[in-house]
Amino acid sequence: MNTPELIRKKRDGCALERGEIFEFIERYTRGEIPDYQCAAFLMAVFFRGLDGRETADLTEAMLHSGQVLDLSCFPQPKIDKHSTGGVGDKTSLVIAPVAAASGLLVPMISGRGLGHTGGTLDKLESIPGFNTRLTLAEFRRVLGVCGMGLIGQTDELAPADRKLYALRDVTATVESIPLIAASILSKKLAEGIDGLVLDVKTGSGAFLKKFQNARELATCLVEIGTACGIGVQALITDMSEPLGNAVGNALEVVEALETLKGRGPQDLVELCRELTAHMLLLGGLEATLDAARARFDTVLASGQALEKLAQVIGAQGGDARVVEDYSRLPRAQHEDSVVAPEDGFVAGLEAQAVGQASMLLGAGRQRLDSVIDPAVGVIVEKKVGDPVSTGERICTLYANDLGLLRRAREMVRAAIEISPEPVRALPLILARLPEFG
Amino acid sequence: MNTPELIRKKRDGCALERGEIFEFIERYTRGEIPDYQCAAFLMAVFFRGLDGRETADLTEAMLHSGQVLDLSCFPQPKIDKHSTGGVGDKTSLVIAPVAAASGLLVPMISGRGLGHTGGTLDKLESIPGFNTRLTLAEFRRVLGVCGMGLIGQTDELAPADRKLYALRDVTATVESIPLIAASILSKKLAEGIDGLVLDVKTGSGAFLKKFQNARELATCLVEIGTACGIGVQALITDMSEPLGNAVGNALEVVEALETLKGRGPQDLVELCRELTAHMLLLGGLEATLDAARARFDTVLASGQALEKLAQVIGAQGGDARVVEDYSRLPRAQHEDSVVAPEDGFVAGLEAQAVGQASMLLGAGRQRLDSVIDPAVGVIVEKKVGDPVSTGERICTLYANDLGLLRRAREMVRAAIEISPEPVRALPLILARLPEFG
Repeated sequence: MNTPELIRKKRDGCALERGEIFEFIERYTRGEIPDYQCAAFLMAVFFRGLDGRETADLTEAMLHSGQVLDLSCFPQPKIDKHSTGGVGDKTSLVIAPVAAASGLLVPMISGRGLGHTGGTLDKLESIPGFNTRLTLAEFRRVLGVCGMGLIGQTDELAPADRKLYALRDVTATVESIPLIAASILSKKLAEGIDGLVLDVKTGSGAFLKKFQNARELATCLVEIGTACGIGVQALITDMSEPLGNAVGNALEVVEALETLKGRGPQDLVELCRELTAHMLLLGGLEATLDAARARFDTVLASGQALEKLAQVIGAQGGDARVVEDYSRLPRAQHEDSVVAPEDGFVAGLEAQAVGQASMLLGAGRQRLDSVIDPAVGVIVEKKVGDPVSTGERICTLYANDLGLLRRAREMVRAAIEISPEPVRALPLILARLPEFG
Repeated sequence: MNTPELIRKKRDGCALERGEIFEFIERYTRGEIPDYQCAAFLMAVFFRGLDGRETADLTEAMLHSGQVLDLSCFPQPKIDKHSTGGVGDKTSLVIAPVAAASGLLVPMISGRGLGHTGGTLDKLESIPGFNTRLTLAEFRRVLGVCGMGLIGQTDELAPADRKLYALRDVTATVESIPLIAASILSKKLAEGIDGLVLDVKTGSGAFLKKFQNARELATCLVEIGTACGIGVQALITDMSEPLGNAVGNALEVVEALETLKGRGPQDLVELCRELTAHMLLLGGLEATLDAARARFDTVLASGQALEKLAQVIGAQGGDARVVEDYSRLPRAQHEDSVVAPEDGFVAGLEAQAVGQASMLLGAGRQRLDSVIDPAVGVIVEKKVGDPVSTGERICTLYANDLGLLRRAREMVRAAIEISPEPVRALPLILARLPEFG
């Protein structure tokens, strides 16, 4: 079938055959199908969708566009976690060490921040010397030594995804559930994992603002991941206020370290516990969710997870002394705060606005090629539901540019809503797919 | 507005502003917007459509992407005709000379055949020496001498259309009413005309098979042409059997010449009369349709139109002796016929299949870069409704390759349907927009 006919077939609402999808992805990856035909195809998919079988075929075609890590020499269950991205989400830095210390192999390949959302790689790179650009051989060595590793996408794994994602970004075809699912899963399946826990975020700070859309994506991810032969558990979690207190790369590393020392903010600890517990279940290390939760608490309390993170930092070329000495992390020159204008209760702390303020300070990227500043960001000292009195500090901003600090402070101020009436704290875990009794 | 945002706006069903449309077309024509973004935009337009105002803006933006012919030095009304393409449609070769001989200026810029449909340029080029690639200066000179001229698209006129059409062709975004309308009208408006008669064909041999779609396009063309300041009359005409008897380039030139000599097939004469009459009305040379029809018959009978065509052939470098000596046209080496297998009436003569058989013989293009054979084609000796007796010839095929002749003959045979019961001839003119009382 020639390419215009294939585009027409999808455009007219017909399902594509597995062979057609594989041929399309192979030829596109090799550069035999030009970007303009792929762009028209992606827009047709945006409007017509892909059914479950087509999405699974697309995922596998993208997966097999490159290498798949063979981790069969490692005895542990291979389990990873993926988040759809949020503000203040440093869970990977806590979860991976706890899971690895518990006996899982965690071959975590992460992304960078874009727009108002942060990325694990950027946070890690605020640690002096930390190298996220390992070769696959180096990555395997780190996995062998530590039971975990944290790197970025490589050219060898799912190259079709990188090419497709770059094209979707500039052709307004990002917001398509089957394309998002195939992108996430092809990358994660390339890690050679047995199971995957997905943190699908919803709310103002998330990519998918509406719960309904988050549920749709979670359902699709579970269906397709299962069809592709791995165990999948999705959690839909709230991202209408930042997760934890810290937003910004080095600030979040400190919060992750504090969490590994048993001093983490309550919401962050809860989310890390739930996600890790599902990883332990998928890996067969625990039989019930309660037992898996208890295991998380035990490993955290034992200090083994903190040791594990220190070990990984060292193995990936970073300065492991940061674990005990935060002054080795970059620190911003200026700070300023936003205080409560009146007595009351925090009713809203718009995650997207806080994320954008942090990006403006330099913690995130406005464009793919923006350079980020690891030191800057925002500490959210109060959460939704907390009581505040007039003049009490709600947020602290850390900056290296006074002009940006002034503008970011206004954004944060506008993101805060105070109510005279008591407000309930926001529920964090909104749904689990598959459901748990 | 950046390009992904503009694509997203259309994708999400919002109307684009005039300035946005102009900027998009200007930047795309200059190569500042890449094909992949334009392809995604075109697919979004395919699904979301364009309203009348957007389509008029797009048409004008495409028109002003290049030069517009300034024909104001010519005193005659400037009127052209455009057909959406069919099988055996040689009307331009009859209409333009009659209209020019009647006192209109006919600056006709035509296309080439593609797929099963023929193109005026290919027919003209079967005349030895005929040059359809005049510069605009040469074209103006021919118009001045003859009152008409017949050339192909040039680089100067509506370059955005050429670039967009080539992209639509390979991205399955051709079949969009507003994009078709903007493409047709931008090219025709670039001719500097006052009025345009449109022959929108429907039926198996037409681009738009369904009457409803043809009506939609005709309505759009009339609306947009009027909004752009020219007079427009659309006729929706039948293309379920070939028009006239001849299909194939030199064969059609002979039939056009025969028609100009008063010996044309009834359906071809009728369609030429109706289209020309509407041109005369738009140009203000006649006040009623009946008077305009009578003028067509008078000019045809006078021999002035035949003289006019001979004059144009000479002015454009062709051998005008073909007008009297058909042996100067290319002639095929082989012929074969399809005869009636039984007594009865012709009930169907699938135009698309006859067009495809003719293309297979070499008269048309399977791809844009196919080389065509001017001599080959099919003569349809019977029309729908005609009685036939067993063994009577229905079609004759002319070929230069015996293998192709055999395959084409099978296609033509399968295209013929014979009924034992009498069958009505097909109505030719199905609708007029605007309607005529």
